Amino acid sequence: MRLPSDVVERLLETWPVARLATRGPERPHQVPIVFARAGQLLWSPVDGKPKRQGELSRVGHIEAEPRVSLLLDHYDEDWARLWWLRVDGVADVVRPADPAGDPEVSAAVARLRAKYPQYQRVPVLREPPTLLRIRPERLRSWCASPSAASP
Amino acid sequence: MRLPSDVVERLLETWPVARLATRGPERPHQVPIVFARAGQLLWSPVDGKPKRQGELSRVGHIEAEPRVSLLLDHYDEDWARLWWLRVDGVADVVRPADPAGDPEVSAAVARLRAKYPQYQRVPVLREPPTLLRIRPERLRSWCASPSAASP
Repeated sequence: MRLPSDVVERLLETWPVARLATRGPERPHQVPIVFARAGQLLWSPVDGKPKRQGELSRVGHIEAEPRVSLLLDHYDEDWARLWWLRVDGVADVVRPADPAGDPEVSAAVARLRAKYPQYQRVPVLREPPTLLRIRPERLRSWCASPSAASP
Repeated sequence: MRLPSDVVERLLETWPVARLATRGPERPHQVPIVFARAGQLLWSPVDGKPKRQGELSRVGHIEAEPRVSLLLDHYDEDWARLWWLRVDGVADVVRPADPAGDPEVSAAVARLRAKYPQYQRVPVLREPPTLLRIRPERLRSWCASPSAASP
């Protein structure tokens, strides 16, 4: 069965992690990301968390092919509590020259800071400032039982 | 930094969930899966858990393009404990006519039953029996600190 729409809304606002799949040169590429919603868009910063050498392939992949997928899900030993939510969307790479002076970017950064207290200690943006912006086109969801994603 | 090799081995043996990315017709497709390792291969059954209508697109995608990616990862509010492990591999769809009489399949099913006690109540295989078999080609990993994936 599908997740109820109010649960979908809550998860898109509050769930802390998603897996971003992009098209790589040989096969799909996946990486966990943090993200925040601002308006109808999802934003994920290239932030100050340590990164794997070369792991910013996500940026290059999106520049080559913007159609991406985001997966939010929960694993539980109680299989009646399994659920997933997939966001198929179109992404682009935003490189604001002046993040604080860009209303859309500064709203996104404010949402990221509000969602992740970790950004009190970790920079939201590194130099040069880079964010991924994802416009959802289609949502798909599944849950094992009506209460699977209850808080 | 990378995950130590003994941690990689432990995660491939014991981590309960991975996200499988396949190439879809329009964009990468992702779904959470359970899996078990038998020898050097990873096996994921089309099992008796409820499925989303049509969600077996994973099977069709693999038949069209076998190069897949599996992502194991852990999200934690303590960002020093973040890690991920990505398995790039080649998958195929196995449809054994007689699962119990096929030594490779019955070994894989035994590993799945040993790893997931949930299979005491949920069928490992449905009709017709179908499993995904993934041969890892390349591992990539990242962790935020040396103790990120410590038990």
